[in-house]
Amino acid sequence: MTRAVRIRVDEVELSAELAGGEGREAAPDVAEYALWLGDDALVLAQQLGAWIARAPELEEDVALANIALDQLGHARSLLRYAGTADGRTEDDLAYFRDEPEYRSAWLFEQPNGDFAHTIARALAASAYQFVLYDALQGSRDPVLAAVAAKAVKEVDYHRDHAAQWTLRLAGGTDESRRRMAAALDDVWPYVDELFRDEPLIDRLEGIAVRPSTLRDPFGRIADAVLAEADLRPSARFSASGGGRRGIHFPTLGYLLAEMQVLARQHPGATW
Amino acid sequence: MTRAVRIRVDEVELSAELAGGEGREAAPDVAEYALWLGDDALVLAQQLGAWIARAPELEEDVALANIALDQLGHARSLLRYAGTADGRTEDDLAYFRDEPEYRSAWLFEQPNGDFAHTIARALAASAYQFVLYDALQGSRDPVLAAVAAKAVKEVDYHRDHAAQWTLRLAGGTDESRRRMAAALDDVWPYVDELFRDEPLIDRLEGIAVRPSTLRDPFGRIADAVLAEADLRPSARFSASGGGRRGIHFPTLGYLLAEMQVLARQHPGATW
Repeated sequence: MTRAVRIRVDEVELSAELAGGEGREAAPDVAEYALWLGDDALVLAQQLGAWIARAPELEEDVALANIALDQLGHARSLLRYAGTADGRTEDDLAYFRDEPEYRSAWLFEQPNGDFAHTIARALAASAYQFVLYDALQGSRDPVLAAVAAKAVKEVDYHRDHAAQWTLRLAGGTDESRRRMAAALDDVWPYVDELFRDEPLIDRLEGIAVRPSTLRDPFGRIADAVLAEADLRPSARFSASGGGRRGIHFPTLGYLLAEMQVLARQHPGATW
Repeated sequence: MTRAVRIRVDEVELSAELAGGEGREAAPDVAEYALWLGDDALVLAQQLGAWIARAPELEEDVALANIALDQLGHARSLLRYAGTADGRTEDDLAYFRDEPEYRSAWLFEQPNGDFAHTIARALAASAYQFVLYDALQGSRDPVLAAVAAKAVKEVDYHRDHAAQWTLRLAGGTDESRRRMAAALDDVWPYVDELFRDEPLIDRLEGIAVRPSTLRDPFGRIADAVLAEADLRPSARFSASGGGRRGIHFPTLGYLLAEMQVLARQHPGATW
């Protein structure tokens, strides 16, 4: 079906995002970097989708579903650009790569858990994506810069959403505070991976954002929220990570299986 | 959290929808009717949410997620209005009613199945909702009329989306056509229930839409698509139904359990 169904936000803006680079082909290293960011967003979008009509309030369902849609929009833009390097489509990349070909970081692969875990993951993910996209607006690559310019505005809302829920749960009942604290303890070990400079980054000077440069701005955002919530994640350890090199958290395999089963059963897009 | 997170579409328009009836309390019969429509939409929204990042194309994920959000928006408006009859909130109604208190019809309760089943269900559901909301715009009840006036425009897109996919699957590969035909056979027995006049309707003359009056306009819409697809559902039987009286398809219990578990574990909305 190429005929337009109503696509409200992300789709309308997709062409605009790519306008600066229409017909532009990503170099292999740039494509690899686009997969880092695109896979983070795709994995997060799929996990958030599971909350539709299951959050603690109906209003919250709408908010989480909108965030999932934003992330899916970013993922599509980034995967589409990555695919220009070797003629693959966004659907090829989403549905026909195996786990070792995925480039998402372990933070994004952390399971939904209870609602507090989803919020703790969102707090770290949105603070990271905000500082990342903010810096990436200055990329010499016009497509990455355009995607970042759009995404940073949306992720700013995600960040506010996660911050407000963190404070609400931290300041709610004893039970909600206990759960929020436990969730932060569980999620925070996966933050460190986001700031490790892989060799790829040395080959993308002025194009990619150097992960280690994001550690301080990330810390300022996250610490402000945590201080207001009077919570301090124990960060008992730093997870080994390895997502940028295709080594993934054990739950990713199940997530991909669910996501890919339909497209793989019937390759060729008509079914 | 009463502070605004970004709610893009449904939330912004929610106050406008209810503007005509702000402070208006639904009479018990009107509230019961609002639950019919609201529960249909809520159940459909939750089921569609499961498709996020699992549809056969990423573009399709975005479309299905947007449809889920529309349905969730309609459900919230209708449940909120229903709750004015006895002081319950939309969340009370969504999360703290047991299965026999739900009023959804069996069509909406049909499981996602494979993608063709989701589309067959969508074809029937959207044609029904379109003719229903179209007629309900003329209701003497200003809140129902306002909700319908907004919903009919959105459902018109859902109808187009389902029609286009029906044609695409019917005219695709042998496999896709076989699946689409099988899905229509499985779903169509649940259509008849939608057009049965329950005693409640006699008490809502000029307010509710009499279900039996929708059978012909529904048929014209659905038959046009089916004729173009050259498919004829066998409709081997008409399901007993009973959703409007609290008797539900067996899978609804599982769906409600998933949807309600978080709110019920921690009643009181802070967690």
